[in-house]
Amino acid sequence: MRCAVILAGGSGTRLWPASRRTKPKQFLALAGEDTLLGATVARARAVAGRVLVVTAADQVELVERAVPGVEVIAEPAPRNTAAALGLAAVFALAGDPDAVLGGFPADHHIADPVGFGVAIERAFAAAERSDVIATVGIAPTRPDTGFGYLELGDEVEPGVRAVVRFVEKPAPAVAQRYLDGGRHLWNAGMFFVRARRLMDDLQRFIPETGAALRLIATALRRSATAAAAEIAAQYPALPSVSIDVGVMEKTHGVVAVPGRFGWSDVGSWTAVAELGPADARGNVVRGDAVVVDGDHNLVVTDPGAAVALVGVSGLAVVRSGDAVLIVPLARVQEVRAAVEALGAAGLARYL
Amino acid sequence: MRCAVILAGGSGTRLWPASRRTKPKQFLALAGEDTLLGATVARARAVAGRVLVVTAADQVELVERAVPGVEVIAEPAPRNTAAALGLAAVFALAGDPDAVLGGFPADHHIADPVGFGVAIERAFAAAERSDVIATVGIAPTRPDTGFGYLELGDEVEPGVRAVVRFVEKPAPAVAQRYLDGGRHLWNAGMFFVRARRLMDDLQRFIPETGAALRLIATALRRSATAAAAEIAAQYPALPSVSIDVGVMEKTHGVVAVPGRFGWSDVGSWTAVAELGPADARGNVVRGDAVVVDGDHNLVVTDPGAAVALVGVSGLAVVRSGDAVLIVPLARVQEVRAAVEALGAAGLARYL
Repeated sequence: MRCAVILAGGSGTRLWPASRRTKPKQFLALAGEDTLLGATVARARAVAGRVLVVTAADQVELVERAVPGVEVIAEPAPRNTAAALGLAAVFALAGDPDAVLGGFPADHHIADPVGFGVAIERAFAAAERSDVIATVGIAPTRPDTGFGYLELGDEVEPGVRAVVRFVEKPAPAVAQRYLDGGRHLWNAGMFFVRARRLMDDLQRFIPETGAALRLIATALRRSATAAAAEIAAQYPALPSVSIDVGVMEKTHGVVAVPGRFGWSDVGSWTAVAELGPADARGNVVRGDAVVVDGDHNLVVTDPGAAVALVGVSGLAVVRSGDAVLIVPLARVQEVRAAVEALGAAGLARYL
Repeated sequence: MRCAVILAGGSGTRLWPASRRTKPKQFLALAGEDTLLGATVARARAVAGRVLVVTAADQVELVERAVPGVEVIAEPAPRNTAAALGLAAVFALAGDPDAVLGGFPADHHIADPVGFGVAIERAFAAAERSDVIATVGIAPTRPDTGFGYLELGDEVEPGVRAVVRFVEKPAPAVAQRYLDGGRHLWNAGMFFVRARRLMDDLQRFIPETGAALRLIATALRRSATAAAAEIAAQYPALPSVSIDVGVMEKTHGVVAVPGRFGWSDVGSWTAVAELGPADARGNVVRGDAVVVDGDHNLVVTDPGAAVALVGVSGLAVVRSGDAVLIVPLARVQEVRAAVEALGAAGLARYL
């Protein structure tokens, strides 16, 4: 059975003040009426027979409220994606020894669900047919230096190409070369692999994690309570390593499906602005807002709260809960500086 | 007895979103902990034995909440300052036939209370000593085209000068000439006159108002209830005319005391910014806010709400209740456009 694993452990400050310490990005409705997590789960249910959400223990309630009825696995501490996918593999195998996992970040946006379905079907099928780990990468649309890249090799079957190597965030000139060359994809953090194969690879490349997962699997055969106790005992001590670095870069048979389906990691207010829709003057507005004589602003506000802009352009203006952020869209990467300044000013209660 | 009359009928949109239809400027604490009205009443109590607040009927509760225990006269409809001061004169005369009125707008800020006290004492004394109407005008500090001006004549006693004429808001070149010439003051709407003299002048120059006020005075001698009924019957039909145009420009013996006491009409967000204090980079902040890499911004926020600015300069950012305004300080006169745009967008509930 195909088992979607949604990795919902994220935190981060890049979308403050909408995202907070207690309400990370995946719980926000940045692109429509549904939260990013809710939309991710809905897509996952369309491609998999079982859906597991792996999240931080202190976010379990938030997940259950955002996606009622979903199956949640709680991490007592964040140990990065290798451990999280491994933990999900244990639960998937308990239900089906032939389970095939599809891992998805919880906080991305997909504009074209049909194109998404096509790519995911292809990746699951590749993982099922042969002993490979498949990933779905995004055909770049700009020389972005904020993503890792997959370097592609030959086509191994229609629409599926070998991955020669993983590349960390490149310099601008390199990113431009990747864009021009057509042999690189953005690494979007989506992985497809038989659960048994993943366990074997973890055992081989991150033996500490492999051993701990075997103990957890043994406990789970006894009971869910025993598994929870074993997770509490083992999990926090696991090495914190990503599936990319810990497994994918070291194993054999990695393939990639190029995807073109309006993907966004919604990683900054600029990314939110790009989701649109924009008015005739390029302003993107979410909520009750007016822009008088201004171009290319992003305005986001809560229901029941209004924002008025007069004579300003190129700004991100976000009112969320008890906080307001104003920053030029060209400088949204400096939101972190605002967050740090608030902390330094004794105003960490707003973070 | 000296009787201070505080004219608290104002409304206006220039300080939206802090000021709203239901909460005009005088009820805001823009310069400190007290509301502008509260500070005005406190100053009035220091210079007068009786304090009357004239306000719109639908603002009586707001006044009583802002200034508990103050004596309030309700206008059933706004009829401008000649009628409002006349109505206050009726109430003042009922308590003391020799009452001397001092009229003050409710929504101005005074930075230097000692200097204010000196000027007010001089103006009250002038009105008591001789049959004049005294005004306290403000020595201009810039060629402002937003105020009316008083043109001064000779000194009639130390610190008191004759007023030759009232000038409406001048053109920029004219305002500059006034500033350079030293013979003009800003009209700050403060008037000092024996109540009996005011009644006579109203009778002479605005006879309709004079006649109505006599009827109200007769009713007040019977009872407060009778007066209220007479006010309801007479007041809404009175001509709407300012004391400046209706009386001061026509009568004789108008004098002015030049004042220098850090006066501000708090008439725009720029004026609020000028109240300071500013940090080393010229940012003026009221409430929980941080400015990262920005100069000369004004940031105003409610208690319990934070604002963070990154990489922007010269902006007014105001978060008040359920609304946020962003406008360059150089364009704050366009707040009206934002207010109109909200109304046009079906968002008048935020006004």
